[in-house]
Amino acid sequence: MSFGSSSVLVVGTVAFDSIQTPFGSRERIVGGAGTYIGWSASRLGVNSGLVSVVGEDFPSEELAAMRAAGMNLEGIEIKQGGRSFFWSGSYHMDMNGRDTLETELNVLADFNPVIPNEWRKAKWLMLGNIDPSLQSSVLDQLEERPELVVLDTMNFWMDIAMEPLKSVIARVDVLTINDEEARQLSGERSLVKAARCILGMGPRYLIIKKGEHGALLFHGEGEGLGYFFCPALPLEDVVDPTGAGDTFAGGFIGHLASLGRTDFEAMKEAVVKGSALASFTCEAFGTEGIRNVANDALQERVRAFHAMTAWKESKVPAVQAV
Amino acid sequence: MSFGSSSVLVVGTVAFDSIQTPFGSRERIVGGAGTYIGWSASRLGVNSGLVSVVGEDFPSEELAAMRAAGMNLEGIEIKQGGRSFFWSGSYHMDMNGRDTLETELNVLADFNPVIPNEWRKAKWLMLGNIDPSLQSSVLDQLEERPELVVLDTMNFWMDIAMEPLKSVIARVDVLTINDEEARQLSGERSLVKAARCILGMGPRYLIIKKGEHGALLFHGEGEGLGYFFCPALPLEDVVDPTGAGDTFAGGFIGHLASLGRTDFEAMKEAVVKGSALASFTCEAFGTEGIRNVANDALQERVRAFHAMTAWKESKVPAVQAV
Repeated sequence: MSFGSSSVLVVGTVAFDSIQTPFGSRERIVGGAGTYIGWSASRLGVNSGLVSVVGEDFPSEELAAMRAAGMNLEGIEIKQGGRSFFWSGSYHMDMNGRDTLETELNVLADFNPVIPNEWRKAKWLMLGNIDPSLQSSVLDQLEERPELVVLDTMNFWMDIAMEPLKSVIARVDVLTINDEEARQLSGERSLVKAARCILGMGPRYLIIKKGEHGALLFHGEGEGLGYFFCPALPLEDVVDPTGAGDTFAGGFIGHLASLGRTDFEAMKEAVVKGSALASFTCEAFGTEGIRNVANDALQERVRAFHAMTAWKESKVPAVQAV
Repeated sequence: MSFGSSSVLVVGTVAFDSIQTPFGSRERIVGGAGTYIGWSASRLGVNSGLVSVVGEDFPSEELAAMRAAGMNLEGIEIKQGGRSFFWSGSYHMDMNGRDTLETELNVLADFNPVIPNEWRKAKWLMLGNIDPSLQSSVLDQLEERPELVVLDTMNFWMDIAMEPLKSVIARVDVLTINDEEARQLSGERSLVKAARCILGMGPRYLIIKKGEHGALLFHGEGEGLGYFFCPALPLEDVVDPTGAGDTFAGGFIGHLASLGRTDFEAMKEAVVKGSALASFTCEAFGTEGIRNVANDALQERVRAFHAMTAWKESKVPAVQAV
C-alpha cells in the first residue's frame, strides 16, 4: 500500500480490550486508538500509515485484515517476547461513564514512535491519545509541516503532564477532547469561554466530543468565535461505545484528507462524517461495528444527520406592542 | 385582555423561588411554571389565560406587569391570609443538577383549578407540572377537545402517582420530560426505545428536554418513528436555569398557537423557538432574562440556531473496493 498525498499518518495504540457493559461483555478483543482510526478512515476509502507497537501475542490475521482494508502497517513494531497493551473497563448503566478495571502497558511502556522515512512528508497527521511527549516527538521527526495535524488527548495527561500537553497542543491545528476535559484544560465552566481559552493556546479548531449528546466544533477568536453543532444519532441500542471517539477522529481527518481541504465548511462536514462513522462503532463490541461499513450505509446515516436538524421558518407575527 | 382563538390556556404555579448557584443567589424572587410559560408566550405576541393560586403575599405590581404583557389573570385565585407556593434549590457546580432545599406548598396544598367559563373552549392548552389528577380535572372541565394539549411533568409524579400520571398522559398530544424521566416512564435505556414506548401511551409527540444538550422531538410509531433534534445554544454564562423548561414549553405552544398549526414541521420550528426563548431565561436570575426579550433579539437567536447546524455535503469519493 503506497503512502500518497491523501494518506493519513496515524500514531496510536493497537491493543487488546476487555469490556463489560450492562448488556454483555467481551474478553481480549482487538482495540486501540490507532486501530479504530485506521478502520474509520478506510471506510472513506482513505489509506493510512499506522505507527504503533504490539507484542507477539497480536493476531497476524488481524494485521492482515487491516492491511487489506488499506492500512499500511510498516510503522508497527512487533516486539518479540512482548505482550500487547491491554485495557479493561466497565461501563455504567447509562453507558456514558465507565471505570477502568485494569491497564497493562506491556510493550507500550517503552514505546518510542519512529516515523518511517517515506512518511515524514505526510500531509495529514492524526495523533491518537498517547503521552504528549511522544506526540511532540512525532512532530519533531517530520520533514515538513503537514497540511493538518489533529490531536486527541484525555484528562489523564492533564492530571500528570499538563506542561508537555500544552506544548504539543500549541503545535496542532485541531484538538479533540470531551466537555469535562475542555473545562479542566481551560479552567472555565462555560464551554464558550473554555473554547475561546483553548483556541488561544494554539489550535485553529477545537472539537468538544459529548458522546450521546453530539459534538461541538469551535473556530476563531474572541468575539469572532464560530461554532457548529452535530448531534449524535439516536440509536436503538448502544452496545459498546469503546473506540467511538477514535472512530470519530479517523472519519474526521479521513474526510478532510479525501477532500484535500481544511476550511471551516469542510470541517463541519468532516464532523458529520466522523459522527456517522462513530455511530456504527457504538452498535457492536470492538471494531465489529465499523470494519464492514459500506458506502451506502454510511451515506444513509449522513442523510439521517441532515434530516434530524432540518427545519424551515414560517412567517410569524411579530411581538405585539404591549 | 380577551381570550381569543390563539390564546393559550395555561395551568401552572405562580410562586416564589430562592435560588443558589455557584455564581450567586436570590431570595424569594418571582417564579413558577405558569409565570414562565406566560412570559415566554408573551414574547411571541401570544396572549395566555393563567389558572393558578397565590397567597396575599404575592406582589400586585408583579401581577400588573404580567397583565400588561398579555396575560389574563382572571383564573388566578388570590387566597386572603394564604402564602404563595415557595421552592428553594441549589445548583451544582456544573449547573445541570440541582438539589431542592425546601418546598412550602402553602396555598398550593389544596389547589383545585377552576377553568373560567369563557376559557372552556380554549384551542391551546398548556398543562404545567402539577399533580396529574389536577391536570386530568382541567381536561374534564373543557367543553371541547382543544386543538393541542401539551403536558409537562416530572419524576416526582412518576415516583408517587404513576397511574394517575399515565391516565392523563393518554389524553394529551405532546408530552415534555427530560431524558432520565423518559427512561423512568418507559423502563427503557435507549431513548429511541423509550420514545417508541411513550408514544404508545397516547401522545402524538414526545419532547425530551436535555438542558444544555438540547431537545429531541419524537413523532410517529414503530418503524416510522421520526425525530428532530434542536441543540441548546452555547451560552457565555448560564446564570440560572430555573424556569428554562417552562420557558421552552411556553414558546413551543405559543408558536403553534400563533401559526394555528400542529403538524410535525410546525412542531420542529416550535422546538427551535422554545429553545431560543429558554436561552434568554438561563442568562439571568428568575424571569429577568425572558420578560424583556424583544422580537429582534429573538430572531437573531433563532438565526444562530439555524447557523449552528447548517452544513453542505461535498462530492466525495466512494469507498474503494478493498
